[in-house]
Amino acid sequence: MTVETNTAQFASVSLDSGATLAPVTVAYQTYGQLNASKSNAILILHAFSGDAHAAGLSSETGKPGWWDNTIGPGKAFDTDRFFVICSNVLGGCQGTTGPSSINPQTGCPYAMSFPVITIGDMVQLQTQLIDSLGIERLLAVAGGSMGGMQALEWAVSYPERVVAAIPIATTARHSPQQIAFNEVGRQAIMADPDWNDGNYYSSRPPARGLAIARMVGHITYMSDESMREKFGRRLRQKEKFGFDFSVDFEVESYLRYRGSQFVGRFDANSYLYITKAEDYFDLTNAAGTLANAFAKAQARFLVISFSSDWLYPSYQSQEIVRVLRRSNHDVAYCELPSNYGHDAFLVDVAEQSEVIRGFLESTYKEKA
Amino acid sequence: MTVETNTAQFASVSLDSGATLAPVTVAYQTYGQLNASKSNAILILHAFSGDAHAAGLSSETGKPGWWDNTIGPGKAFDTDRFFVICSNVLGGCQGTTGPSSINPQTGCPYAMSFPVITIGDMVQLQTQLIDSLGIERLLAVAGGSMGGMQALEWAVSYPERVVAAIPIATTARHSPQQIAFNEVGRQAIMADPDWNDGNYYSSRPPARGLAIARMVGHITYMSDESMREKFGRRLRQKEKFGFDFSVDFEVESYLRYRGSQFVGRFDANSYLYITKAEDYFDLTNAAGTLANAFAKAQARFLVISFSSDWLYPSYQSQEIVRVLRRSNHDVAYCELPSNYGHDAFLVDVAEQSEVIRGFLESTYKEKA
Repeated sequence: MTVETNTAQFASVSLDSGATLAPVTVAYQTYGQLNASKSNAILILHAFSGDAHAAGLSSETGKPGWWDNTIGPGKAFDTDRFFVICSNVLGGCQGTTGPSSINPQTGCPYAMSFPVITIGDMVQLQTQLIDSLGIERLLAVAGGSMGGMQALEWAVSYPERVVAAIPIATTARHSPQQIAFNEVGRQAIMADPDWNDGNYYSSRPPARGLAIARMVGHITYMSDESMREKFGRRLRQKEKFGFDFSVDFEVESYLRYRGSQFVGRFDANSYLYITKAEDYFDLTNAAGTLANAFAKAQARFLVISFSSDWLYPSYQSQEIVRVLRRSNHDVAYCELPSNYGHDAFLVDVAEQSEVIRGFLESTYKEKA
Repeated sequence: MTVETNTAQFASVSLDSGATLAPVTVAYQTYGQLNASKSNAILILHAFSGDAHAAGLSSETGKPGWWDNTIGPGKAFDTDRFFVICSNVLGGCQGTTGPSSINPQTGCPYAMSFPVITIGDMVQLQTQLIDSLGIERLLAVAGGSMGGMQALEWAVSYPERVVAAIPIATTARHSPQQIAFNEVGRQAIMADPDWNDGNYYSSRPPARGLAIARMVGHITYMSDESMREKFGRRLRQKEKFGFDFSVDFEVESYLRYRGSQFVGRFDANSYLYITKAEDYFDLTNAAGTLANAFAKAQARFLVISFSSDWLYPSYQSQEIVRVLRRSNHDVAYCELPSNYGHDAFLVDVAEQSEVIRGFLESTYKEKA
């Protein structure tokens, strides 16, 4: 299945900060067919460094989407039955308006003049996309990590538009540890002289700072155990310690590779803005308590966490589940066993697929 | 109790890499009195960023030592009874020869011409210090984190010189996750243009890189729970989000402060060398298995870990304990409950002190 990225343009979006961004472009892909009653649409929400290319093979690069093991004919999100949409988030760098986009008022990239955005702003822009596709209600919103935050935000802020929400490996509010890891990444980028207060688009990007930020990220995405299984203390192409500061261990080589690879595909300023949106995310910001936040939610929920995920630990999912249960919402919860840490929602998908498939099946039958 | 730092000079030390370093200075402090039979000496081994000033009030700065809550009259390491020694490690920057020291052959700082060192090298230099103090056998070697690695190395490499070993919150070998966090710190330093291949002693140090390395460190020293208790999502001197990239959250302010503070007291090249020594540490390097490594050990062991320490998790201590028990060594183990994460061995010392006190009491009575 070859897929193309579409773009939609919208007049403006009013942001939580009070600023307005105009105009705004959204990059998105769709898979499957919207049915006549428009009751089979599912919005997939990507994580921090994801993009609109969730499934199929890209017509440009030939590469599979980031959740191709989960979206497609006969898969968890079955494109033989459902119309699946995925868009790049506001503030991103993969086709949707972000800090690397040209500010029409200046003819130059926004850079750090881009307004600070929130998860709520991302979702608000997604509602405009869904409107433009003529869809009133989504059968489901689903995503892992930051995608799960968006799924929660949808259920809370647009309750009448969401039949079911599937937040995976996520949280109702970023913890200080989660903020701290993001802050380290931001500081690494801003400490790089090539960052130049964000004005690097006509010269070279802050590659070293961005690579370090990504290295920290990758450590938090894996579990201690999966790192032991994948790397152990194996040396990289040598039989003894080098007794110097070149690469000794395979894990060092892996991190350096992942760091440098990321620089080619991601914008450092987007890193700053998107992590900030994650850190601001707290469903209790407006409502005071989580129970208040969920009070108007109408969706049924499937909450999934993974046993070895220490970046978004299960207790954060369980807090969501407890509050939903207490207020008599329809909620199913699975803590899936996995050694893969936070990455599990992307790579260890067999059980996750079964759970999602069953949940969507019953939702479609009973509620659509 | 006001204390002074002494220095001892040694002709040379032969390193695991094959290189020789000559001459070598060691900074150390002592507390209490050596008894006539020289049977009451305890060597305290400091962690990554520690120094020789473990206890008492510094005659220079007036500040208490890093383990002053644990070492002193009537404390866990009771200086009314024991003669306690602590020295700055080889490769350090607090008085013992390290990369910031002057290379007598060039008249310039060693910088990156300093040889790569190991935990074994640190301990070998400590044996020279102990020799110079006329002490044949140590009643105990004790330390947390990297200090615990040195305690284990003493027990394995100099079995006849150690009556008891107290490795705390440590491991018999650095795991890939532990290597990975160190590698991120090293890369952050080396990515800072001010690092200048290590030649910054006559200009400005790589302050931004070193601060970022330290920020990562501090996250790993705390637990998720202790960060929630200490910071939560509290904002720093503001009532609303700033919607900019200045400090929003208290946890951000704390990390930035700790990072910048560290730059004033620690040498970036020492960061590189000491973390490398940690990463090379693996008691099975020479012996093949942990059982072989411990085969000749004669010490009794007190192994301590902390429930919320995810940087040096309890399973690493338990591996040591299992191997020692299987081979019929004298070993006691305590996993102490604490919310403080890896920092617990420095800050949550009430129970730790009781356990150490009892262990030293019986060791001194039965074995000294």
